[in-house]
Amino acid sequence: MKKAVLIPDSFKGTMSSSDICGIMKSRIDARFPGCEVVSIPVADGGEGSVDAFLTALGGEKVWLQVNNPYFEPMEAFYGLIDGGKTAVIEMAACAGLPLVEGRRNPNLTTTYGVGELVLDAARRGVQRIVVGLGGSCTTDGACGAAAAIGVKFYDAAGKSFVPVGGTMKDIAHIDLADSAKALEGITVVAMCDIDNPMYGETGAAYVFGPQKGADPDMVKSLDDGLRHLGEVIKADLGRDLTEVPGGGAAGAMGVGMMAFFGATLQMGIETVLDTVNFDDIISDADVIFTGEGKIDSQSLRGKVVIGVARRAKRQAKPVIAVVGGSDLGMEPAYDEGVKAIFTINRLPQDLSVSKNFSKENLAFVMDNILRMM
Amino acid sequence: MKKAVLIPDSFKGTMSSSDICGIMKSRIDARFPGCEVVSIPVADGGEGSVDAFLTALGGEKVWLQVNNPYFEPMEAFYGLIDGGKTAVIEMAACAGLPLVEGRRNPNLTTTYGVGELVLDAARRGVQRIVVGLGGSCTTDGACGAAAAIGVKFYDAAGKSFVPVGGTMKDIAHIDLADSAKALEGITVVAMCDIDNPMYGETGAAYVFGPQKGADPDMVKSLDDGLRHLGEVIKADLGRDLTEVPGGGAAGAMGVGMMAFFGATLQMGIETVLDTVNFDDIISDADVIFTGEGKIDSQSLRGKVVIGVARRAKRQAKPVIAVVGGSDLGMEPAYDEGVKAIFTINRLPQDLSVSKNFSKENLAFVMDNILRMM
Repeated sequence: MKKAVLIPDSFKGTMSSSDICGIMKSRIDARFPGCEVVSIPVADGGEGSVDAFLTALGGEKVWLQVNNPYFEPMEAFYGLIDGGKTAVIEMAACAGLPLVEGRRNPNLTTTYGVGELVLDAARRGVQRIVVGLGGSCTTDGACGAAAAIGVKFYDAAGKSFVPVGGTMKDIAHIDLADSAKALEGITVVAMCDIDNPMYGETGAAYVFGPQKGADPDMVKSLDDGLRHLGEVIKADLGRDLTEVPGGGAAGAMGVGMMAFFGATLQMGIETVLDTVNFDDIISDADVIFTGEGKIDSQSLRGKVVIGVARRAKRQAKPVIAVVGGSDLGMEPAYDEGVKAIFTINRLPQDLSVSKNFSKENLAFVMDNILRMM
Repeated sequence: MKKAVLIPDSFKGTMSSSDICGIMKSRIDARFPGCEVVSIPVADGGEGSVDAFLTALGGEKVWLQVNNPYFEPMEAFYGLIDGGKTAVIEMAACAGLPLVEGRRNPNLTTTYGVGELVLDAARRGVQRIVVGLGGSCTTDGACGAAAAIGVKFYDAAGKSFVPVGGTMKDIAHIDLADSAKALEGITVVAMCDIDNPMYGETGAAYVFGPQKGADPDMVKSLDDGLRHLGEVIKADLGRDLTEVPGGGAAGAMGVGMMAFFGATLQMGIETVLDTVNFDDIISDADVIFTGEGKIDSQSLRGKVVIGVARRAKRQAKPVIAVVGGSDLGMEPAYDEGVKAIFTINRLPQDLSVSKNFSKENLAFVMDNILRMM
């Protein structure tokens, strides 16, 4: 074996994607010394996504002063990869929940800093900006971020302001004229792994508001604000984004990225695969190892294993999935390009017990898979 | 793949060796139609051993009337394999625990019928007799079986009798003169998988007496009887068998088989491998599947997986072990010839839950192993 590519999802609650890459690589190094091993920790858009990309591809971590969720100065970062042609941003870097510990309030917090990161990257001449949605403390429909790149929000009196969660309902008009130039010629991709729409029972406010500190009254008020924002976007920008799956991601950042940044929403794994030039990386690989906490036969959409398998299948490269658990009846996954699925459960133990041994169990099954090769 | 050989141990409490062979074969048939599959259910010497041999090799099941554990007439059986050259006997057929339900009493029960089965096979001209020890209701040191082939036991008054558990202490002399002819030229092998010696704290009476119905007083008395039998064997036959590992198997049938039948004691798997001519069977095989409930790094002695692997290694045939659970650190097993170990735990579940799904879980992992091949 001359080249192996590792691209596992995290096993939620037990091992990060980086952990898994590290263990897989150590076993390959032991059994196939000299084999090239390319590790691609899978970013999910949340905290750690920039580091995941930098680990996989190398690059530069750019630090700069931006506004934090309370419009206070802070140092945040983004990544430059692909020889400076692509910027990767995680919104959690300046709008993340850990930044407002003790003062969570989605009525007041802003994504303004995220826009500043985007603007800085744009000014450096990148061709592509990837923004990871996830782990946010905000529910501002990306209005803050939009304001930072020059989008103008006017109230009924014609006064320009920067909307936050609690003031989205005051938006009377939106004007993209000043922002258009900032992103000219740049492709913007927003990555997210959830399907929630902008508002309503399954929307940003109702599902994610409480964990950001919203009480039931605030949830309803935020939901009303998002509903209003959706109407203004429809009226002024001519786009109905209110039912887009994933539009509700990260406090409706999904919708705002589409409306104000011209972004496309993409499942995390597809973004990762595009960003790392996966098709090139695997072109001379002998095998690809992927995995996830649980693989099931019903919902294959957006899952890392299937995303990886589809790409690999086009080049007839074998994909081996190492997982924490699997449904029966995985023919759909095999059809998509998964060669084989192995679980890491070395002993018949409940997850509450076995999760304490997941690293050694993963190493064990990797050893045995490699022994078969 | 043109030929696969299946030789798994049972997964105690969940699947028999035959069950496992059946599932493995069905998966191979599905993925490699036309592949020859040789199933060798592993006999452990206990109930079902004769059928296991007949399944693996074909042959004839011989029925005859013998004495049951209470010297009552019953129909019992043995198997003739290898074109009638080898007889396989399970002592449980006429001295098994289920035969005395409601009247368990190792003071009174006999292995006489086992000797009758041996004698019948010998008269048919077999060259080799395999006697499976296990599942017995007796603790007579094989004295009953010995009496059936002509061994004479005398009490202090010089009177000949057939000792049972409670009367072993009355044996003053043993005479093999009349029995020698019966087994002339016949190799006798006793198969057992336990290490317990004839008597003492880890001996036949103390460890297995209670499950045969002995109360503490009877256990002590049986142990004294075995100790006495050991002395008489030493004095009259010139052999000290009192500390032979496995001598305590099946109510000290191990010692008695050695002393009175000239048998060698052999681990079950070695007997099976010899009896089925395993070396020939695998000579044109592409792969060998074995397995057991739990494989561990410490005690590899006498285990099916290791026994199989050692033979296969000599012919450089790959052995894949499919197991219910595995220790870490299995290098000793790999060194012995195990190519890879896979566990059937599809989900992180306690055995109390997962044992209800062991058949589908085995099929799942077999499918994925076969997909790798």
